[in-house]
Amino acid sequence: MDYYKEALKVHEQNKGKLAIVSKVPLKNKDDLSVAYTPGVAMPCIEISKNSEDVYKYTSKCNTVAVVTDGSAVLGLGNIGAKAAIPVMEGKAVLFKSFADIDAIPICIETQDTEEIISIAKNISPTFGGINLEDISAPRCFEIEARLQEALDIPVFHDDQHGTAIVSCAALINALKVVHKKIDEVKIVINGAGAAGSAILKMLIAIGAKNMVICDRSGIISKARKDELNEEKLMLAEITNQEVKGSLTDAIQSADIFIGVSSPKTVTAEMVKTMNKDAIIFAMSNPEPEIMPDLALEAGARIVGTGRSDFPNQINNVLAFPGVFKGALSAKAERITESMKVAAAYAIAGAVQEERLTETGIIPSVFQEGIADAVAAAVADAWHKEAEEIVSIG
Amino acid sequence: MDYYKEALKVHEQNKGKLAIVSKVPLKNKDDLSVAYTPGVAMPCIEISKNSEDVYKYTSKCNTVAVVTDGSAVLGLGNIGAKAAIPVMEGKAVLFKSFADIDAIPICIETQDTEEIISIAKNISPTFGGINLEDISAPRCFEIEARLQEALDIPVFHDDQHGTAIVSCAALINALKVVHKKIDEVKIVINGAGAAGSAILKMLIAIGAKNMVICDRSGIISKARKDELNEEKLMLAEITNQEVKGSLTDAIQSADIFIGVSSPKTVTAEMVKTMNKDAIIFAMSNPEPEIMPDLALEAGARIVGTGRSDFPNQINNVLAFPGVFKGALSAKAERITESMKVAAAYAIAGAVQEERLTETGIIPSVFQEGIADAVAAAVADAWHKEAEEIVSIG
Repeated sequence: MDYYKEALKVHEQNKGKLAIVSKVPLKNKDDLSVAYTPGVAMPCIEISKNSEDVYKYTSKCNTVAVVTDGSAVLGLGNIGAKAAIPVMEGKAVLFKSFADIDAIPICIETQDTEEIISIAKNISPTFGGINLEDISAPRCFEIEARLQEALDIPVFHDDQHGTAIVSCAALINALKVVHKKIDEVKIVINGAGAAGSAILKMLIAIGAKNMVICDRSGIISKARKDELNEEKLMLAEITNQEVKGSLTDAIQSADIFIGVSSPKTVTAEMVKTMNKDAIIFAMSNPEPEIMPDLALEAGARIVGTGRSDFPNQINNVLAFPGVFKGALSAKAERITESMKVAAAYAIAGAVQEERLTETGIIPSVFQEGIADAVAAAVADAWHKEAEEIVSIG
Repeated sequence: MDYYKEALKVHEQNKGKLAIVSKVPLKNKDDLSVAYTPGVAMPCIEISKNSEDVYKYTSKCNTVAVVTDGSAVLGLGNIGAKAAIPVMEGKAVLFKSFADIDAIPICIETQDTEEIISIAKNISPTFGGINLEDISAPRCFEIEARLQEALDIPVFHDDQHGTAIVSCAALINALKVVHKKIDEVKIVINGAGAAGSAILKMLIAIGAKNMVICDRSGIISKARKDELNEEKLMLAEITNQEVKGSLTDAIQSADIFIGVSSPKTVTAEMVKTMNKDAIIFAMSNPEPEIMPDLALEAGARIVGTGRSDFPNQINNVLAFPGVFKGALSAKAERITESMKVAAAYAIAGAVQEERLTETGIIPSVFQEGIADAVAAAVADAWHKEAEEIVSIG
């Protein structure tokens, strides 16, 4: 199938991908008097007396805003708010199909950080959560942090945390296959944008000790001559500071390579310098950092990509529907590190240990029950954390 | 049925009234590759090349934002954004049920005029139109005017224009019943907020000449000692400037009373001073300016209210679904006076002339085909206006 041709046809024929439905009947005057005036005044009054009742009487409890400014859409770059709509509608379709969550695209014309924060904050009443999407780094870090600070609903930048959760899930299982331990392996991440940075932090959360992260100029370390922004300084802080040099230097004797960068940044020669039983996640999309067959020929034992036409597809769809479903059901106020870790282990656990193989480290996005398993784990992690806070307090 | 009790139950059981559905299937990897990556990149690219294609490939063409700040909700007043959600969801249910339009509540936390304008403008990419709702006067006038100025999609404050259209429709038919002419009757409007002001302007557009408008302090005229705001000065300008005094003074020898004010502001004694065959639209909700039986006893010939339990229900639902349907189908950039007038005549025309009676001047909201008739008239009016502009230009 020619996906590009078919996508144009399907988008045009259906006039986009989303529609609204009413959950209540509207056949006669009685229905009208219940769904609208005069009856509707009652839930309004209840909410005005107790704002928590907004979860009881409105769709807020199951509605997520998919917010973008169109500044970093897929591999297309800064195409703006209007051109980003098909992706955001697609995201909403995934939310619905995989977790029965009602997601609504909010595509913002301005790319000013302050304005984006203010807009998302001000339109939050109808939303139980905010999924930030395709907002360029480093702005995305500040937008997420400040929005979460201002709101008591979860704010989740999927390009960061969704990717991090699924990468960690894949790595947890890959390490089982090669019989290595997370705290003993050397991990190299290439790409220090939203995804790379989040993957690094989450790998630390699951126990990684020896890590190196590179950007286009090589290993990020304080020894670098060029000026590092705040985020990159922090990355240098939490990685292996003894190492400096290029990606080629970094990858030597590494056990794991994780790419969230650009096509063809890794060669067969580089893979040959890695440790035995090397694991490679080449997630640049649609063209990976190195093609799987080339990496395997060069000695890698496990290869994952972002693509559905190769084994081991590392796809955010495995994470965000369940993460939001769990957070919404638990009425979590934010999505914490422990909730993300719980999501990663739930995804990893969806492949039975005895069925793990080099080409089967991660479940298919269509495997039944993934979102529910992730949701349960995420809700559970929130409740535990909330309890701990209560017991410490 | 106890609508208030039932409304609480229905809102709680359904967890609000709205849900999202996908218009495309998502059963397998092919579906995923068409609705999302990699296929979705194609419509994005097309829109980035030609922004008009956003109408071709996204749901914008059929999606309306229902925007409020919760400052003037029903008769409840300034209850804020969260407490307003049930009304906005109700509005979206009406849009869907009566015109198959996908409407999305946008409830804004701030009540600052500048911020509201900026927010609505910035989130407009996914919307084909904006329905402003329950925003208090006089802020609503500026918000609507400036937003319409800034955007090339229709911006429509329903509390103003929806009410005006349906009131005009009812009056057109009522005048036929009593055999009076619009340019010969004396009309008194009580209430100079959003609705009263819009009704006045629209009545002028359909030919009314002798009009008086009152607020709580009586007839609005330049002779008044208290300070009039900009909007009220304009109302004084376009009404009968020879008249001054109280509502009681104004209503003497009037042919028509239109109330968009408060319960019990009109007495039987006042109705008795009106001309023969008086027409009274007492639209204060839920309690009218004067109860229909009292007005009829006092000599009125036709009485309409906003309520569904009396004859002649003057209900916005007759107008806004069709108005937006017509505007969206015509890709109108705004909703002009002639489009509103066309809507009023289409609604009036939905009651066959030979069937007009004192208690049947306006169609039921459930009468088949109303929205389509209104939509056709509105689209037609836009096309005519667009042609005229072209032929003049």
